[in-house]
Amino acid sequence: MQFKDIVMQRYAVKKFDGRTVPGEKIDELIDLVRFAPSAFNIQPWKIKVVSDQKLKVQLLPAAFNQEQVTSCSHLLVFCADPDYDSLIKKLRTLQKDNHVPEEVQEMVTGMATGFVKAMPPEQWLAWSQAQTYLALGNAVNGAKSLGLDSCPMGGFNPDEFIRILNIPRPLVPVMLCPVGYAADTPMPKIRFRTEDILL
Amino acid sequence: MQFKDIVMQRYAVKKFDGRTVPGEKIDELIDLVRFAPSAFNIQPWKIKVVSDQKLKVQLLPAAFNQEQVTSCSHLLVFCADPDYDSLIKKLRTLQKDNHVPEEVQEMVTGMATGFVKAMPPEQWLAWSQAQTYLALGNAVNGAKSLGLDSCPMGGFNPDEFIRILNIPRPLVPVMLCPVGYAADTPMPKIRFRTEDILL
Repeated sequence: MQFKDIVMQRYAVKKFDGRTVPGEKIDELIDLVRFAPSAFNIQPWKIKVVSDQKLKVQLLPAAFNQEQVTSCSHLLVFCADPDYDSLIKKLRTLQKDNHVPEEVQEMVTGMATGFVKAMPPEQWLAWSQAQTYLALGNAVNGAKSLGLDSCPMGGFNPDEFIRILNIPRPLVPVMLCPVGYAADTPMPKIRFRTEDILL
Repeated sequence: MQFKDIVMQRYAVKKFDGRTVPGEKIDELIDLVRFAPSAFNIQPWKIKVVSDQKLKVQLLPAAFNQEQVTSCSHLLVFCADPDYDSLIKKLRTLQKDNHVPEEVQEMVTGMATGFVKAMPPEQWLAWSQAQTYLALGNAVNGAKSLGLDSCPMGGFNPDEFIRILNIPRPLVPVMLCPVGYAADTPMPKIRFRTEDILL
């Protein structure tokens, strides 16, 4: 499937048909997300995959009763991770394990450390969130590439999601991405004209 | 090209070969970006495409002399747009022009208006920025799908970019995406393990 077709055929599903996506497909999807780009390769996100129907029903009110949460097969909860100390340590270990030259390790983790030290703490979450959206983009395009449908959803109560899913601090759920098979019909895809988005 | 191959072959290019990408390819790329998803379809971004070499040279110091800025063919400057009043008006016009049912128009623009009214102004830029990253994701994957290379770059001085490119308020450049043909060799693509990103 050409990327252009993925982009044009993907849409925000309002209702899924309730069928279960095979686990191997979800594994493939997670891998497409995992290899998304991030600044300094710091990967400041974690994902909670919810497939248990009872748990999805429990989450429904915290997502303003949007039925994608319960009609989907798997609900991906994208959490922004602002624990930069841990992330940079993990990145260094990853580099070592993969025999990245010592000077490259130094350079990348040094740049990342300098960058996050210079960032005011009140911006940490927003910065991690922005990076998380790159991963989310791979999720929605990746789902379509695997014959699946999805819906990026920002309308939910993060505190309730933290409570119900026992999401550890300092992670914060920033976007939901239910995945499954669509049971609705897409509306025509409309966007601003090219001349309206170019400066 | 399969999406999986796009994801795995795309990398952050450090040096381009200076060749010019045909204008039609850039048009195709902009279209892949244009059809990216955004909350309420509000599309809170604008893009400045810089192809003039003198201008790229002028921007170089404001991008900490990272040579992708001058060795690329086209430099895409992604600007977050927090002018929600204008965006929602434009969205309504877009819906009308495309014969979206009146009640759907009401619902979507009503939800968007309510959402942005409830958002503290100090979060506007971060929210638009996060949406912009979805468009950026389509740019880096889209470039690879078109046989091009790219590099998402956050390291630059937004105020200097605003000044040099005469970017109108309240737009803020949040990411650069130089596009062209790679002249470097990618390093092996390493990421945290699946078990490290799943909760």
